[in-house]
Amino acid sequence: MSTNRSPEIRKDAVHNRWVIFSPARARRPSDFKAKSDPNSNSKSQTECPFCAGHEHECAPEIFRVPLDSTSEWKIRVIQNLYPALSRELEYPNSESNSGPASVAGFGFHDVVIESPAHPVHLTDLSPVQIAEVLLAYRKRIDQLRAFDSIKYVQVFKNHGASAGASMSHSHSQIMALPVVPPTASSRIQSMKDFFKETGKCALCQVKQDDLLIDESSHFFSIVPYAATFPFEIWIIPRDHSCHFHEINDDKAIDLGGFLKLMLVKMSLQLNNPPYNFMIHTAPLQVDSEDLPFTHWFLQLVPQLTVMGGFEMGTGCYINPVFPEDAAKVLREVRVPN
Amino acid sequence: MSTNRSPEIRKDAVHNRWVIFSPARARRPSDFKAKSDPNSNSKSQTECPFCAGHEHECAPEIFRVPLDSTSEWKIRVIQNLYPALSRELEYPNSESNSGPASVAGFGFHDVVIESPAHPVHLTDLSPVQIAEVLLAYRKRIDQLRAFDSIKYVQVFKNHGASAGASMSHSHSQIMALPVVPPTASSRIQSMKDFFKETGKCALCQVKQDDLLIDESSHFFSIVPYAATFPFEIWIIPRDHSCHFHEINDDKAIDLGGFLKLMLVKMSLQLNNPPYNFMIHTAPLQVDSEDLPFTHWFLQLVPQLTVMGGFEMGTGCYINPVFPEDAAKVLREVRVPN
Repeated sequence: MSTNRSPEIRKDAVHNRWVIFSPARARRPSDFKAKSDPNSNSKSQTECPFCAGHEHECAPEIFRVPLDSTSEWKIRVIQNLYPALSRELEYPNSESNSGPASVAGFGFHDVVIESPAHPVHLTDLSPVQIAEVLLAYRKRIDQLRAFDSIKYVQVFKNHGASAGASMSHSHSQIMALPVVPPTASSRIQSMKDFFKETGKCALCQVKQDDLLIDESSHFFSIVPYAATFPFEIWIIPRDHSCHFHEINDDKAIDLGGFLKLMLVKMSLQLNNPPYNFMIHTAPLQVDSEDLPFTHWFLQLVPQLTVMGGFEMGTGCYINPVFPEDAAKVLREVRVPN
Repeated sequence: MSTNRSPEIRKDAVHNRWVIFSPARARRPSDFKAKSDPNSNSKSQTECPFCAGHEHECAPEIFRVPLDSTSEWKIRVIQNLYPALSRELEYPNSESNSGPASVAGFGFHDVVIESPAHPVHLTDLSPVQIAEVLLAYRKRIDQLRAFDSIKYVQVFKNHGASAGASMSHSHSQIMALPVVPPTASSRIQSMKDFFKETGKCALCQVKQDDLLIDESSHFFSIVPYAATFPFEIWIIPRDHSCHFHEINDDKAIDLGGFLKLMLVKMSLQLNNPPYNFMIHTAPLQVDSEDLPFTHWFLQLVPQLTVMGGFEMGTGCYINPVFPEDAAKVLREVRVPN
């Protein structure tokens, strides 16, 4: 379907990022399949510290769901045993600066164990159970934003070894950072520029028929106009909302079902690929004047391509699948009831 | 050696990029080894279009080395059969714009076949032979910069399937772009800021004893202070020079030997990892006022880690190995004569 097209360079108005769409390098969009096994790093249940009964092998628990459960927990939020940032450092800690441009690595790095059972993936949960995972994110963010020194919270999930998951037991991660990271600050700048020019929020405006995959009561999903990766999906709240942690219980249940639908479509179409999802939200201490143009969303990226020297060197990505083609393919995936 | 350290967030003054150094996530620096086989995508010699005798299976040749050679060529520069950009499009081509922020994908995408023989890797070549590859880059850049519409040339090499190489026959790639890509423009802005503040070129100032790996007559190599990736190496010309294509024959021979030494050290220490290298140079039409603070270098990155949701979401990288430790390990690798 894209074989007669010429390459095109598109700019993403949300990220202010250029992407090269290069149909000459593509198989047919419908032929894309993952090669690697997302479970290649699987431990057996008996050695997995995330399984029920192995709680003592983990770093300290922060809370569990239900709160008063003993062995019958459904979700556990725990500290990461190998945290990238340390909650024990002070920030800012000028004494430990060892160079002209360094700060102590203060922050929080937590893990959300999504099920007590080893073989259960996120897509095996019901919409309500996925909502409970989303509400565990919300609760943990509410705790973290009590710290003045925390500027941004990044929620993400790595599924499959080649997507960065070191444990096969289904889990996601929450990192609380003492700085607003570069992707967030450039996204906000870019959305601010769009707002200044048009008077509108870029994500309230983003829905286009040819890029739309599906809609639920409170959300819609698209392949973005300048998708960085093939078959990348954005799930966007219909109503303008800056922070993920503003989500209420009803919307969480709606999102639970809709996220599940997108994951199942992706898995059926692309042969159960390794994937990442990231929740992009506004910085915690957002100025009130930034409220009209910041809008949270969930980015879902199947791992189908490898980053090479061109992408590393230029910061510019090559995507072999036009977003309109990917959206059409995903729209047409039939999900068995 | 880094086990007692706290995490630290460092800023790279060249790229204006924050990196989290996280020793808790590391094995000992000396224990890092690549897992994957860089030759997992190898075709046998009889099916490889880059081998001598298969020239007719390739896209058109641009030139060969030596120029007048027939079957006895040493290097061939050819068009990429699956170019990411098209040399047949006009730039700018306003008629083909299909959206609010897109341009036609005009540009050149070429391949440098580094040897006629399939099993020969870059490290098997002599310093003079590697210099011939570098001089082939220079010659092709000299041709490409004759086009007014070409703003930047990215030279890069992908070695190994997981580093993005789709062909195992040793080759590198040259992409000529109609725009200055984001990494280059932010690097130049960042080096300009450093120059304004200090009156000096950031790369002329970058050599530090604890980060130094080795030196040659015209180059030195370091693990940069805020290396994005574990065991990342920068090879930097001693004398201030904006553009790679200013390199002369003597310096190319020196660089040939020095690049080979770094590749061999990396390969011995890290178990022959997949890798990328990228030549970072100034935009072709650089303003004369930018000359004092733009300085080309070669970035060499072994593939030891996987990009996960945190890196994709935030644009911030986590590096488990402190650059001082990586530099010490690489400095001490003994290379057999």
